[in-house]
Order: sequence, then structure tokens, then C-alpha cells
Amino acid sequence: MDVYQEKIKQADQLLAEFELDAWLVFVRETAEHTDPVIKLLGPLNAVWEAAFVFGRGGQRIAIAGQGDDEAIRRLRLFDEVIPYTQSIRDELVRVLTRLNPRTIGLNYSRSDVSADGLTYGMFLNLQEYLRGTPWLDRLVSAEAFVDAWRGRKTSQELNRMRRANDIAMEIFEATGEWLRPGLSEKEIHQFAHEQTRQRGVETSWEADFCPGLNAGPNSPWGHVGASDEKTAPGYTLNMDFGVKVNGYCSDHQRVWYFLREGETKAPPEVVKIFEAVVGAIQAAADFVRPGVQGWEVDAVAREYLVKAGYPEYPHALGHSVGRYAHDGGMGFYPRWERYGNKPYSQIAENGVFTLELGVRSEFGYISLEEEILVTATGCEWFSPPQQALMLVPFH
Amino acid sequence: MDVYQEKIKQADQLLAEFELDAWLVFVRETAEHTDPVIKLLGPLNAVWEAAFVFGRGGQRIAIAGQGDDEAIRRLRLFDEVIPYTQSIRDELVRVLTRLNPRTIGLNYSRSDVSADGLTYGMFLNLQEYLRGTPWLDRLVSAEAFVDAWRGRKTSQELNRMRRANDIAMEIFEATGEWLRPGLSEKEIHQFAHEQTRQRGVETSWEADFCPGLNAGPNSPWGHVGASDEKTAPGYTLNMDFGVKVNGYCSDHQRVWYFLREGETKAPPEVVKIFEAVVGAIQAAADFVRPGVQGWEVDAVAREYLVKAGYPEYPHALGHSVGRYAHDGGMGFYPRWERYGNKPYSQIAENGVFTLELGVRSEFGYISLEEEILVTATGCEWFSPPQQALMLVPFH
Repeated sequence: MDVYQEKIKQADQLLAEFELDAWLVFVRETAEHTDPVIKLLGPLNAVWEAAFVFGRGGQRIAIAGQGDDEAIRRLRLFDEVIPYTQSIRDELVRVLTRLNPRTIGLNYSRSDVSADGLTYGMFLNLQEYLRGTPWLDRLVSAEAFVDAWRGRKTSQELNRMRRANDIAMEIFEATGEWLRPGLSEKEIHQFAHEQTRQRGVETSWEADFCPGLNAGPNSPWGHVGASDEKTAPGYTLNMDFGVKVNGYCSDHQRVWYFLREGETKAPPEVVKIFEAVVGAIQAAADFVRPGVQGWEVDAVAREYLVKAGYPEYPHALGHSVGRYAHDGGMGFYPRWERYGNKPYSQIAENGVFTLELGVRSEFGYISLEEEILVTATGCEWFSPPQQALMLVPFH
Repeated sequence: MDVYQEKIKQADQLLAEFELDAWLVFVRETAEHTDPVIKLLGPLNAVWEAAFVFGRGGQRIAIAGQGDDEAIRRLRLFDEVIPYTQSIRDELVRVLTRLNPRTIGLNYSRSDVSADGLTYGMFLNLQEYLRGTPWLDRLVSAEAFVDAWRGRKTSQELNRMRRANDIAMEIFEATGEWLRPGLSEKEIHQFAHEQTRQRGVETSWEADFCPGLNAGPNSPWGHVGASDEKTAPGYTLNMDFGVKVNGYCSDHQRVWYFLREGETKAPPEVVKIFEAVVGAIQAAADFVRPGVQGWEVDAVAREYLVKAGYPEYPHALGHSVGRYAHDGGMGFYPRWERYGNKPYSQIAENGVFTLELGVRSEFGYISLEEEILVTATGCEWFSPPQQALMLVPFH
């Protein structure tokens, strides 16, 4: 059983848990605009409108334009692949009539990009095709199902993610050994890319922005490409980086301090910030367990940091990792409008999440990002966390 | 002015033509699920909900989550980049109030994937954010505007596409010189990939399916990967292939006949089919001019082929080419339900389209795909069309 078969089998099981009688993935021209769930289903391509229908009884049915059907048939993911020429309408209605579902889950979500693959135009088409049938009123959001399916990793998914974690750690280590004062962010970016290429893998997100780098206090904060700012004695360097291996990602931040002449350790202010960051992440990790809501975990870290005397971080504490670095679904989101209902998602076993936060200082951006795996009773580090500031000698 | 600046300037001009006071591109997590228009706007990334607003007065305003804003600012595509932390709502309402548009175009379309980047969940969010404001009732589809903007190529776009056409023609030629009987589709696929790599470009669509190949009559038809079917004397070979250069694609089909022992030309039946295919494409090219509707062009070729005694092709005559091989928007679509209102789009100057059709026969799939550029009064070949069957000597 390959990773796609394993994932589809998991979907079969989750339909019952989330009380969906059918799940309908409705796409077209996937090369131009795909649905994020397609990556989890398999190497599926459709030029014309296609419906991938999963029934609670284990049925797996594809309806696809003639010309698309044979390639889909060959994947052996579906029991039936039904071709059409002029319109998908009749076959779609026929399949739904056969399944007779009380609820039909669609991929739309106000909060979660990864459960929101259905476009508005395709939703209008579906409404039109189902007009006058009982199925029109049975369309519901499949958000909770998709989030759980995406979030709860299977054993093959975890194996691939562990490999991505290991390789990323190697590259962080190689970078640390090579670092010296006077390097620009652009040079460090290039070094990390060479390391990535040498290992035959790719970056977890768009190469121009991966790694994200912050050398010293003058580097612009946020999702910005590498700048001309340079490492220097008395500065910190933050690196936000991950690799994708066999389609699965890692995502970590590491931080170094560059010793000034005569220094043997970082100044107390730097150490104090670093320890507050480590402490906040540890407090969140100690709190995480299946069943807690995401915002509660965020609140633990947020309060810890504020109590330690530092400002709140202007983002969420953590997100799911998987096919994408930001994999969507559950996560540790504060109750802000921009996160919709995501803060209220219940954390489940076998989810892999980041814990990430930092403090901007006169030395630079001091920030960490770790990955955890949620277990039956709590969580474990998915890769060894950074527990001490890494020091770069004076040159 | 780079290609993005040129394209944004064109958008400014088209807003008036299509009577949109504002165009609103509303996205989030673009690394995971982007809007197809983003590729035309620039190397834009947004993790959090972002609104890119273009006003008819030439205003270009971005609203983005803090952390996304600086990278967007640095692109210099927008006059203003407004950051937010907890919700995009207030800033979005403020910007719309300032512009006071009577119509606000959104990227949704029942027919055209490339004008349908807005997801249903994001549409629901937008409705919620604009509730109680006058802007809610002024939301309209930007489909016609987006299609024209995408379809009418600028001079820099045409330059890039010409380069892609030239390189693809080189690769077709190299493939033709290398072909011999007994090669599997998989071997030909590999050869084309090596040629593509050597020229430092990539395939126009997913590499597994590009080129699409049909060797002889037993090869499965449609969007299927290369099979183990082999070229053989008395068979035809069809190759559907394109390359992407600087982000712009080409898309052509070429056909060869493999001579049997003693043959110096293809059998009359093969020549008759080939000439019917060439004739149908030529008839369509003779008919194309700005202002005709897409389905009319399809009908000309379709009738020609049927009159010549062959069955209708089970697809459209042609599609737009650009950032994608199937670039969406206008095209030569028959009036079938699956094509929605696309058949009725008016063909405009500076569009680049394919003309493609074929006939399945006992010798194999005999099909061609050419590219044309629509001019002020008609069209011209965008690259030299195949006018004669290419013959592979007997071995």
C-alpha cells in the first residue's frame, strides 16, 4: 500500500467519524488551479470538470471528461472511472442518486485554505447541475473532515516527514559550522541552497524566501527575501528554513549569536530573551495534548512571553506541517478575526505542528521554531529542539 | 518597464473598457493555493488574507498581513501597501470607501478557470467583511475583464512566447531526426526531456504528460503518460509538446509516418486524413479575425472535417496559450455545456491560440496543433505550421 492508498483508506474511516455520507472533490484544469486536497489523493490531473466522489460505504468513484479518464483509471485509486463528453451533469446526478447521501461534503472553508479548494465559479456550476434534485440541499462544508484527514499523519507520512526533519537539521548544522561575521543574508541564502541541492531535495517553500534570514537588528522582519544586511559581531542571526522530501516538508527556525572580540558568551540581555523564547515554547509543549483547542496552546506561550517582559508575537504560535510547510487545518491560532474558526479546532493525535515565536531586539530577531508530534497523552519533539544559543566565534 | 509593470498598465486601461470601477484580488496562503491571476501580477506572496485592489483611476493598493507587507512593498507594483494585524476588514472597507466604486470585479467565473481564483470560503469571508456596507451589493464577476487582460498579450509577453515557440520547434526537429522504428513512447518521452533540459527550459505542462505521445493505433488516447507502445513501420507517431521559457508556454502537435519496407511515401489513406486535418486547421485560420465568437471558429473546422468524411473531434478546436499551456479565457469552444459561456467569447487582437484536431485511424492518431496570433484583420501563424507528413525511413 503506497502513501496515497494509505491516505484514501484513512479518508474512508474518517467519513463516518465526521458524519459525511459522501465527499465530493469538484475540480477542473488542475494544472492551472488545483484543489489543495488533490496532492494528498494522488497524481490526479483533470483538464475538464471532474468529480471525485467518496462514499461512506467505501465507494471511490471518479467522473472525468473523455481524454482525462484513462490516466485516472491507471492510478487504480478508484473503483470506477466514468467518462463524459458534453457535460458532467448527468453522470454526477446518477452517481449521487446511487449513493443516496444525506450529507455531501464540499471543500469550502472560511478559515482554512487547505479545506477551501472549491472555487466560487465551480460552486455555482454545482448548484446549477444539482438544481431540481434532492442533492442540492445536502451540500455541506467538509472542513472538519478535511482538516482531520490532512492533519492526522499516517505512518508513511511520518516517515517522510522525519527524513525531511533529519536533512534540514544537517543543513542547519553545516550552515552553523560555516558561518562567520561579515556574510550577507544573500550569501547565507546561497549557501543553504547549495546544501539543499547537494542533498537532492528542494526547499519547503518558494526558494527565494527559503531560508528566511534576519542578520542583526536592521534586517526587515517578515516574509521577505534575503537582504544585503550582514552578520557582525554583537548581532544575532535568525534562519527560518525547511526542506521537502518525497513531497513532505519540514519547517524550523534556528538562532545564532556572533561573539564580539573578547566575548566567550552572549550578553545577558540576549541570553535572557533566548531563554524566554525557549521557555514559552516549552510551556506550550508541556500543555499540548489531544482534545485541547488550538488557541489555548497559543495562549500559554503568549502569556509566558508577556510575563517574561516581552511583547506578544504578531502571529500564531504554530501551524500544521505536511505536504506544505503551512499545511492548513488545525493549529495554535489566537482568537483573532483573521484566523476565523481555526483557533477552536481540537488538537488530535498524530498531528505535526510548529511552535514558533520570537522577540525583536537591538541585537536582531531572536526567534525559534520547533516541530512537535502529538501523541495519545501529550506531545514529543519531532526533531531535537534548540536549547542553547549557538555561538559564532569572533573573526 | 518589466513584463509585470507592462501587464499592470494594461489592466489599468482595460478597467474602463469593461466598466469596472475596481478590481479586487482576494487571496491567502498563496504558496498553498494561489489565484491564477497572481502569476500575471508579479511574484506576489501572501500568507495571510490579502487584498490587491486596482481602481479605475489607476490606483494600485495592497492590504496585507503584517509580515507579508514588506516583501510586497519591495516589488514596487503598488502605490500603497497597508499592513494589518488582527483582521483585514477595517482596512479593506476603508480602501473601498476611498475609491467609492460602483462595481467591484471579483475573480469568479463559471466557465473559465483562469478567471475563477476566488474560493467559495473566501467569497463567504468577503460577504461577511462587507456586510452593512454599500460595497456588498457592488460585487460582480470580473470574468470578461480578466479574460481580455490575460488573452491580449503585450509585446514582452509575445517576445517570451516566440522564444518558447522557437525552442519547441528545435526540439521537434531534433526528435524527428532521431526517430526510428522500434522506439517506445517512454524512450521518446525521455529523449524530449533530455532535449528540454539541454536547452535550460522546462516543459509547458506536467513533465510526466509532456510530451503526450501516440505511437500507432494501440496507444491510449487522451491525457495519458507515455506508454510502452512502440513506433513501427506503417504506424504514425503523434507528439503533443511545449516548453516554458521565462514563464511563458508553447503548445504544438506534430505527426510522423514510419515508412514500411519499400515505401517512399505514406499510404493514400494516411495522406488523405493528414490533408483533411491540415485543411480543417487552414479553414479555421482563414476565418479567424477579431470580433468573431469562439464557437464559430470551432464550427468551421468541425464542419470541414465532417465533410471530409471523418468524425468530430471530442474536444474544442483551440485554447489560449500564455502563462499556462491551457491559459484559460477566450478560445475556440463548441457550444457544449461543459464549456459554459466560453464559446461565446469574442476573439480579440493579440490573442495567441491553438488550432488542434485529429483523427484516430488504423495507423495511429493523426493530429496537429498549431499556434496563431490574432492580428487587426485576421491571424498569422505564430510558428510555421506542419504542411506535410514527416516521414521516418524504414530500418
